[in-house]
Amino acid sequence: MPEKKLGKQTVQLKKPPTITAAASIVGPKEGKGPLARYFDQILDDELWGEKSWEMAEIKMVRETLAKASEKAGMPVGNLDYILAGDLLNQCIAASFGLRESGVPLFGLFGACSTIGESMSLGAMLIDGGFAANVACITSSHFCSAERQFRFPLELGSQRPPTAQWTVTGSGCAILSESGTGPYITRVTTGRIVDMAIKDQNNMGAAMAPAAVDTIYAHFEDTGLPHDYYDMVVTGDLGRIGREIADDLLSSNGISIGNIFNDCGIMIFDTKQDVHAGGSGCGCSATVFAGFLYDGLKSGKLNRILLVPTGALLSPTSVQQGETIPCIAHALSIENNLVSS
Amino acid sequence: MPEKKLGKQTVQLKKPPTITAAASIVGPKEGKGPLARYFDQILDDELWGEKSWEMAEIKMVRETLAKASEKAGMPVGNLDYILAGDLLNQCIAASFGLRESGVPLFGLFGACSTIGESMSLGAMLIDGGFAANVACITSSHFCSAERQFRFPLELGSQRPPTAQWTVTGSGCAILSESGTGPYITRVTTGRIVDMAIKDQNNMGAAMAPAAVDTIYAHFEDTGLPHDYYDMVVTGDLGRIGREIADDLLSSNGISIGNIFNDCGIMIFDTKQDVHAGGSGCGCSATVFAGFLYDGLKSGKLNRILLVPTGALLSPTSVQQGETIPCIAHALSIENNLVSS
Repeated sequence: MPEKKLGKQTVQLKKPPTITAAASIVGPKEGKGPLARYFDQILDDELWGEKSWEMAEIKMVRETLAKASEKAGMPVGNLDYILAGDLLNQCIAASFGLRESGVPLFGLFGACSTIGESMSLGAMLIDGGFAANVACITSSHFCSAERQFRFPLELGSQRPPTAQWTVTGSGCAILSESGTGPYITRVTTGRIVDMAIKDQNNMGAAMAPAAVDTIYAHFEDTGLPHDYYDMVVTGDLGRIGREIADDLLSSNGISIGNIFNDCGIMIFDTKQDVHAGGSGCGCSATVFAGFLYDGLKSGKLNRILLVPTGALLSPTSVQQGETIPCIAHALSIENNLVSS
Repeated sequence: MPEKKLGKQTVQLKKPPTITAAASIVGPKEGKGPLARYFDQILDDELWGEKSWEMAEIKMVRETLAKASEKAGMPVGNLDYILAGDLLNQCIAASFGLRESGVPLFGLFGACSTIGESMSLGAMLIDGGFAANVACITSSHFCSAERQFRFPLELGSQRPPTAQWTVTGSGCAILSESGTGPYITRVTTGRIVDMAIKDQNNMGAAMAPAAVDTIYAHFEDTGLPHDYYDMVVTGDLGRIGREIADDLLSSNGISIGNIFNDCGIMIFDTKQDVHAGGSGCGCSATVFAGFLYDGLKSGKLNRILLVPTGALLSPTSVQQGETIPCIAHALSIENNLVSS
């Protein structure tokens, strides 16, 4: 077994990287939600002076990276790598948003799990001795996602109660080889789980088994007590998916209901008419870069397991009658190294 | 500077991973080209018994992984990670092709540079102590790519002389921490270069500056003599892009015309009516897994610099009048460790 491997899916970092800074920019609806004060910037409108929603999303990526780099006190040019991806076809939000950066880029696709994937790989690149500083960034935009995955917004299609609302937002974390934490201490990489759900308006149900698979693997691989974390927080299962995941975990002997939260539930108020909750690459990315990072820095949270979740479907796969393969990547993020 | 970094974009691997096995499956047209005998399997038709071209591409990914794993004498379940991506929206060839694998997956998007990106990250995961064995796999399919990026095939659109032909094929490399080579010794990660080309039927010209940027960085970072390699081989610049890249390199003091080749030129014969050459994620992946890997194993080649190239555009970005950002990732692959 490789030196740093703890079990089938988990590695333990020997020199855990610090999350030096995090930044987020969100849309107006997210800015009216309960986490508003944790975001760095709230846009007045979905276009942000651009000619298209895609261009607005691209601008969010560019500006979020700039903001994170400013907060880290580190010029973008000092980054060794950027790891980035998004939901748009051919990941154009990342590629176009980062094209002026001049930094070596690894483009990723993990759907809404991408911030987990990018922080996992970024942490390993630093721990492996390949990088001193990396940026991990993702985005999503309600309007660009809706017209790409579902229907033109102008159609005013009615959304079923199981549907989730794609977060408009970009979140970025800067990881560094030295620093005072919070640290990324362990990485549990997800495998694809497909329980044959076909309803693209019920992604929470589709993704819940993947989240459960990864959380279960994490506890199996590490042997940590199930109450080890202050919070186990999935990406965008929403209310329905979280309930399914909680049930599945319990029936597998992992009862974490009291510490189990979901970024898609946290980011919107139930009064905001988002049905089952928020979703999108930007969901876990902005909630982590905003609320969760603030909680860690202030000591309100000391240990979290962040589990961004992704549904790996496309309009083509849906049209061809396919089921929805899903994935979830987990990261232990801790203020204290002695305890790990 | 991080321990293993050689310069701005390059890292030197301390325990260079071995490429234990490589496998490729290609379509009928590729099977009539000059490299036919190096591929593991040549399909009789583009559908391979499936109901859609996308499903055929998915099957290629699944079967190519199975073949590579068989050649490596290693069950798929023994892999620590799979790193995979493709050209389809939301990378469904990779996600669906690998969903039964049960192996932790990092989904990537680097367009046609993806095999370079996956082998770069895979090599670093092994060298960093996180994995003993990883699979790096990508695919493309002429029919699924054409209808996604350009026009319905049924339209019979005329292709301009600068156009390239998307390779139908999937290529996979298995990397391992121990073995007798060929070894991945250095990794030069590309950054985005956009020289404002807008013509999606002239991707070679769009990608050439990115290839040049990475090759230039590789020689700058490593200080290696420009004639160090037996072959410097780009992914899919095609005839036009290769000529531009050769000119740009020469004007920057790097005269490697006699050892500079391109997978997009090698894979098809000029008589095959592919205009400027081959392209697609499957182009560099199958040429590497077939011809180049065979050359390394047989000793005909001892040191190559593999430089897969990618154009990070989407139909949406083209429709919105955007230029084409491009990227190239380079890997030193060598039979002999003492020489490096």
